[in-house]
Amino acid sequence: MIAFLKQHTTTAELKLLTDKLSSYGFSAYNALNGAALVLPSANSAMLEDIGIASAFEKLIDTNTPYQFASRAYKTTTTFTVNNVLVGNTHFNMVAGPCSVESEEQIFKTAAFLSKLGVKFIRGGAYKPRTSPYSFKGLGKDGLKLIHQAAKEYNLNVVTELMDLSLLDEVMAYADIVQIGSRNMSNFYLLNELGKINKPVLLKRGMQAKINEWLLAADYVLQGGNEQVILCERGIRSFDTELRNVMDIGAIALLNQLTHLPVWADPSHGTGIAQIVPPLAKAATVAGANGLIVEIHPNPAKALSDAKQAIAFDTFEQLVSQINSLVSESYSSKSQINAGAAIA
Amino acid sequence: MIAFLKQHTTTAELKLLTDKLSSYGFSAYNALNGAALVLPSANSAMLEDIGIASAFEKLIDTNTPYQFASRAYKTTTTFTVNNVLVGNTHFNMVAGPCSVESEEQIFKTAAFLSKLGVKFIRGGAYKPRTSPYSFKGLGKDGLKLIHQAAKEYNLNVVTELMDLSLLDEVMAYADIVQIGSRNMSNFYLLNELGKINKPVLLKRGMQAKINEWLLAADYVLQGGNEQVILCERGIRSFDTELRNVMDIGAIALLNQLTHLPVWADPSHGTGIAQIVPPLAKAATVAGANGLIVEIHPNPAKALSDAKQAIAFDTFEQLVSQINSLVSESYSSKSQINAGAAIA
Amino acid sequence: MIAFLKQHTTTAELKLLTDKLSSYGFSAYNALNGAALVLPSANSAMLEDIGIASAFEKLIDTNTPYQFASRAYKTTTTFTVNNVLVGNTHFNMVAGPCSVESEEQIFKTAAFLSKLGVKFIRGGAYKPRTSPYSFKGLGKDGLKLIHQAAKEYNLNVVTELMDLSLLDEVMAYADIVQIGSRNMSNFYLLNELGKINKPVLLKRGMQAKINEWLLAADYVLQGGNEQVILCERGIRSFDTELRNVMDIGAIALLNQLTHLPVWADPSHGTGIAQIVPPLAKAATVAGANGLIVEIHPNPAKALSDAKQAIAFDTFEQLVSQINSLVSESYSSKSQINAGAAIA
Amino acid sequence: MIAFLKQHTTTAELKLLTDKLSSYGFSAYNALNGAALVLPSANSAMLEDIGIASAFEKLIDTNTPYQFASRAYKTTTTFTVNNVLVGNTHFNMVAGPCSVESEEQIFKTAAFLSKLGVKFIRGGAYKPRTSPYSFKGLGKDGLKLIHQAAKEYNLNVVTELMDLSLLDEVMAYADIVQIGSRNMSNFYLLNELGKINKPVLLKRGMQAKINEWLLAADYVLQGGNEQVILCERGIRSFDTELRNVMDIGAIALLNQLTHLPVWADPSHGTGIAQIVPPLAKAATVAGANGLIVEIHPNPAKALSDAKQAIAFDTFEQLVSQINSLVSESYSSKSQINAGAAIA
Repeated sequence: MIAFLKQHTTTAELKLLTDKLSSYGFSAYNALNGAALVLPSANSAMLEDIGIASAFEKLIDTNTPYQFASRAYKTTTTFTVNNVLVGNTHFNMVAGPCSVESEEQIFKTAAFLSKLGVKFIRGGAYKPRTSPYSFKGLGKDGLKLIHQAAKEYNLNVVTELMDLSLLDEVMAYADIVQIGSRNMSNFYLLNELGKINKPVLLKRGMQAKINEWLLAADYVLQGGNEQVILCERGIRSFDTELRNVMDIGAIALLNQLTHLPVWADPSHGTGIAQIVPPLAKAATVAGANGLIVEIHPNPAKALSDAKQAIAFDTFEQLVSQINSLVSESYSSKSQINAGAAIA
Repeated sequence: MIAFLKQHTTTAELKLLTDKLSSYGFSAYNALNGAALVLPSANSAMLEDIGIASAFEKLIDTNTPYQFASRAYKTTTTFTVNNVLVGNTHFNMVAGPCSVESEEQIFKTAAFLSKLGVKFIRGGAYKPRTSPYSFKGLGKDGLKLIHQAAKEYNLNVVTELMDLSLLDEVMAYADIVQIGSRNMSNFYLLNELGKINKPVLLKRGMQAKINEWLLAADYVLQGGNEQVILCERGIRSFDTELRNVMDIGAIALLNQLTHLPVWADPSHGTGIAQIVPPLAKAATVAGANGLIVEIHPNPAKALSDAKQAIAFDTFEQLVSQINSLVSESYSSKSQINAGAAIA
Repeated sequence: MIAFLKQHTTTAELKLLTDKLSSYGFSAYNALNGAALVLPSANSAMLEDIGIASAFEKLIDTNTPYQFASRAYKTTTTFTVNNVLVGNTHFNMVAGPCSVESEEQIFKTAAFLSKLGVKFIRGGAYKPRTSPYSFKGLGKDGLKLIHQAAKEYNLNVVTELMDLSLLDEVMAYADIVQIGSRNMSNFYLLNELGKINKPVLLKRGMQAKINEWLLAADYVLQGGNEQVILCERGIRSFDTELRNVMDIGAIALLNQLTHLPVWADPSHGTGIAQIVPPLAKAATVAGANGLIVEIHPNPAKALSDAKQAIAFDTFEQLVSQINSLVSESYSSKSQINAGAAIA
Repeated sequence: MIAFLKQHTTTAELKLLTDKLSSYGFSAYNALNGAALVLPSANSAMLEDIGIASAFEKLIDTNTPYQFASRAYKTTTTFTVNNVLVGNTHFNMVAGPCSVESEEQIFKTAAFLSKLGVKFIRGGAYKPRTSPYSFKGLGKDGLKLIHQAAKEYNLNVVTELMDLSLLDEVMAYADIVQIGSRNMSNFYLLNELGKINKPVLLKRGMQAKINEWLLAADYVLQGGNEQVILCERGIRSFDTELRNVMDIGAIALLNQLTHLPVWADPSHGTGIAQIVPPLAKAATVAGANGLIVEIHPNPAKALSDAKQAIAFDTFEQLVSQINSLVSESYSSKSQINAGAAIA
């Protein structure tokens, strides 16, 4: 449960409360910069019983291990990224190359996205690569390039933060800070992201259970940063025909379990360009709030993940199909978290 | 590769051919009731080289372990089940209870489906249950009931064959013979299904790779029965929030790899009624040719799989949504194997 | 729970009992040829409460979904296969080729095993193959050959039953009837095996949970055949370096959960000959009661699974190492179900 | 492949070499602080062909994606941790609590280990916890306590590094720096560990393929730190009876693929105290060079992972059994990397 403290609770009063809780066997964790306590094993009835319920401003029984990601805490989340609405009934499209490779590549991509009305550009500057002997991105130069291209074309930048030591650098150039699959359980990093004031795109770990993913979101949320977007990007299974198994059911389930926006990454989810459009559509009708897709001016020449990047013309077709699916969803099904038109 | 024999090849000529092949280290397997040979490790150039290419009517290089399921063999498959078209651009809907439970239940369901224009009813008579201490279906009585209900309402019956010893019984009452997930690798049974003249609905094993699934289809196809429908029903993963992980990417991929119709079962794929409609839609836009959905007049009272059955009104809404998605797919994307309207 | 009926319970008395149980919402399933009822959702206290506890001979609360496989039912199982003891503190070694290929091959193998003191020979006559275009065994001729070789050298035959239609044939030549991984969930077949009087070697399904495996054993046990051996043979995972992941932990856990003997098959478990000996030893010290190992007079020439067969000299070394591990286990650790010397 | 540069290669000469390689399409990556180049897609014959082989001191064809972890690079690795030998034929035992909880707990444990002749103590100070609402360790105070206890009893400290920002702190108190399962793919962190001069215990990611694990090791090795120990700790699977599936086959396989020492963690591998001893023995006979086991003076009171900690007396028995298995392995099987007696 979450127990909100009254505004002028003193340190001494707080100590009395936590001592009392502790004497009854309840652990308490500070959250929201001291505005609330999380009591994982208690509920409001128990606090009534031990006579301290009235010492709190508000009590929320969550009945889930995750607290701030739960629908008990909140039924919907909406925020803006430089005036673009994210979450709830809004649908967002993000596209761009796996890696920022050159000025020409990233400006060409930005111009193309701008023309289509897409508001977000993605591109890796620091790339997590399984092998130390692979292209690892342009680093800070890559960040600068994607930032310049985005400014020129009025786009927002989504790029990955690989390590805490790069936080300031990434914060300077990104509009949404992406946490990659391999870092979803990097709790030390997540904890620090609770203190920043930019949205966090939290990709699902390739082996993460849905509950674990929501707990990872709680690491950020409990710190006070409520701008978290979940992103399904495929899980690892026994089948190797596709790069991953895109867990479309998880998208539908998350719409029941959480108020957070859920995006989908069909590029990493499938690893094969031809399979990206059908999976993008599948994620959309299953209830995703957004898509993040790898595109490249010349997919065959991409320096990383060449097999999964789609060409500009294919992407243009896809945007039109997604727009049509989103419009239909919006008009006929108020239950689905999908906006009137993609942004 | 597949090598088609000339029509009047004698036994002696065939022996000469296979001896020659054997002397070059090529194994040959009879297929299509003696009309063809499958040579897993040869190709037509090799047969040219050893001078026997001209002894065959036609040579097809497949380049895949599966032969008759490959697109090299055939680019599309269409067949009819009592005048209802299946495969290619046609879309079929199948619905009904997990188990046939009573006359009232199954006739009520049949009447409802008929009213919606759905042409197929599903229902288990012999149920494979993980525990020996669970309801295992009404057996032959169940088969008779679903057959009567189907006749009354002009529906086709889809029901499971659990063992070869039940083949005659199931053949007498089923229009499509379903092979469940647990029997996908029952090669002895599949082999016998190559000899029947009814369509086979081959569900994916919960642990089957896509290649293995297509090889299982080949067990049926090579016997001469070309009416095989593949059905994705979710695979087993580490996550336990949903019953299975529905592999929507597999549906899209199969449209590239095979000419066989691909149906989807979002009920077993997810195990939770609320998640069935979004996954049904996802499978449809990803390129499925049909859906098989568990419905029940009173889901809470279902004797098996109660949690995943959807109520009649929810199903009615779903049919309307699927019809709209299928129509749109048909008009705008000739690449997708989805028909103009569901049958 | 299991409720044993009094010996002279009449049909009428039984009906009264099940009606009463039913009226309280308890389902009852016949087991042990009418000698007992299984009540999955009841316990003895509940039967006391509704006043029918005394109508039974004995009540066993199992607290597990599986009943006859549980340690509540029995703490240890021992039986003989033609005078060779199986189970409890006895350790058995089974070896032989993947497939019976020729008289020479199988007699050579039998002579070799006999010399080493091994009492069981394995060999497939009907082989389940993923592809229809693979060697599928010699069929009945294979069964006859392994039977003759075994008789000549005083060995017992372990061979696979693929389909119910082959039951009589296999029963005529096998001493232990093996159910392969792909048939572990073939409940119709398992049910029939409850009626035979030969031991059943039940391999774990490649994606079966331990609970599901024990329930599969219960399908056989509840029919009255108490000679069931479980065999761990590796599970399917995301890693493809080895054929399967051998779940050694399952062996240790099964020694806590069940009274049934647990054997291990490191050949299918790893798929690579060099890894078979270390895994054979690992399974032994983890508490296995036996090993089933693929050996071949000339592994490179094996018609199936050539990569995982070990040569005779390697096997001879392995037997000596296993004997030493088993002796040590027996002398120092009475907790481990391993015999004084292998049979 | 690895290409060692001649000692006095100038920057200009190096540029000529890499330009030439690049003109032939070969990427080159610096390794070992500039002493070598890694050429992932080349081999020595290719360098001969383009006439630059003689510009290098030595060429090693690895034929694997990982380079410095391969047996082509090195056949065996041995190093000392404060005079205790690790790797090759040496066997090490590490034990201690999941978390350092108190002075009493950690000193009691240290005294006990010292008495048994164990040379390594483990204990978490910063704990990665799935939920933000769990005990996360004593932090720096925990590091100090385990360090003091270890000094008092002449033990070496194994403890986890969670984030780069804690590197100096952990380096001050640890003798072996542990990288947990969740950080195995934290390439930025691994890269930095290539620059330190302390051994790194690299746990396998819970869903890491063996190849990926060896590539992770290469991130450290290529930086010049050759003191890497691999630690199998169980992988995630569909079965939930045990916490993880301990991949004992991976241990045996790694002895074929790499020269690095391989340790095993049966505590996280199984998650159940009773299953720890059999799996510890299984890992040992399969070829592990060491074990890391969670023990606690009072397991029921442990603040984290209480279910998997074993009591002191059980551990004492285990040490004696492992000693006996290791001695036997050493005397009879020179192939197995196991020492004469545990350290």
